[in-house]
Amino acid sequence: MENLKQAAAVEAAKFVKDSMVLGLGTGSTAAYFVDEVARLMTEEGLSITAVTTSFETASQAEKLGIPLKSIDEVDHVDLTVDGADEVDAELNGIKGGGGALLMEKVVACYSRDYIWIVDDSKPCKQLGAFKLPVEVVTYGAEQLFRIFEERGYKPSWRMRGDERLLTDMKNLIIDLDLGVIKEPEKLADELKSMCGVVEHGLFINMVKKVIVASSEGIKILEK
Amino acid sequence: MENLKQAAAVEAAKFVKDSMVLGLGTGSTAAYFVDEVARLMTEEGLSITAVTTSFETASQAEKLGIPLKSIDEVDHVDLTVDGADEVDAELNGIKGGGGALLMEKVVACYSRDYIWIVDDSKPCKQLGAFKLPVEVVTYGAEQLFRIFEERGYKPSWRMRGDERLLTDMKNLIIDLDLGVIKEPEKLADELKSMCGVVEHGLFINMVKKVIVASSEGIKILEK
Repeated sequence: MENLKQAAAVEAAKFVKDSMVLGLGTGSTAAYFVDEVARLMTEEGLSITAVTTSFETASQAEKLGIPLKSIDEVDHVDLTVDGADEVDAELNGIKGGGGALLMEKVVACYSRDYIWIVDDSKPCKQLGAFKLPVEVVTYGAEQLFRIFEERGYKPSWRMRGDERLLTDMKNLIIDLDLGVIKEPEKLADELKSMCGVVEHGLFINMVKKVIVASSEGIKILEK
Repeated sequence: MENLKQAAAVEAAKFVKDSMVLGLGTGSTAAYFVDEVARLMTEEGLSITAVTTSFETASQAEKLGIPLKSIDEVDHVDLTVDGADEVDAELNGIKGGGGALLMEKVVACYSRDYIWIVDDSKPCKQLGAFKLPVEVVTYGAEQLFRIFEERGYKPSWRMRGDERLLTDMKNLIIDLDLGVIKEPEKLADELKSMCGVVEHGLFINMVKKVIVASSEGIKILEK
């Protein structure tokens, strides 16, 4: 599995060009891409500026000597490469297993090109087997949790040890166990419109290229 | 002006009944209502539990001895009374001049009854003369600001002294100087759907009663 993640990351790095502003994703697969970017800089002399999607990735990038900026210090991002927890045939997906969906979506929104790198366990027919994370404001979070229960969304709190996880932006995450999401766009609108919901892990019509690594090799899904 | 604010607050307090869970708004007008609730408790022996909409109001209520709970510790709120910065003929309004629009909206969402108290400078034909506050996640806020500029929304940062105001929920506020908002519902949907927008100050179809105090007396607008 780790080999596949790395293979996808190396493939994505082929789209990296000198002087690019890169968005660096969060999670185990994205971490391989960050390693690869550092290698391109030291071994191939590429000059890169990076924007991160979490404090965790920022810490990894800093250790590797990749120059970092906030999304607010750049005009645009040329290319963002990130992992995904699930991706369907339309290249819509669920992200946020690593708890960084908000910053990931913010960076993706301002990226000219956006690629997901996944191993072959991630593509699916319909989204929803993976729990859908929803980032919510702390104040009123219990009320939202009750509404999700009433709607049959089987919510659970994202934990870190014995405590509820506080995201980098100081919000909470409620994971919804939906089984199958029949209408992802409709659900995305429903969730985002709710008072207290900051963002959700449905990434709809955002990615145009998904690099899938399997034991048989690399496959690129395009839209 | 202060007399009018107080008169509206006293009128609203007539809707307060024993054993109610009350939502306490934020701002100069709402503060008079909080005073009045404290008076009902001490002088008329009412038993009240209150939910606040800001740390500022919580501090006032605590000093007055009003028992406080978080919105997450109550099943429901019977009645919330709050001020508003502008209110149109449909009883839609703009709130957030005090920087507490997010917590105000969260509490209002879970309130069975919701009343605004205003002086007669607040009713208007069309919303928009008052700047519309938008609460945004810190990460990516500059990008949102640029988009608002491009759309001609004349954004400005809400400041506290020389620094950008950080809300109770650790977000920033961008005020939009829109002049006239022709389609408040459409704008509300547009803003809430944007990545990085947590909430906005348009309160649409939320209030059913507005108490307006003028030098000629009290007028109650109902829907």
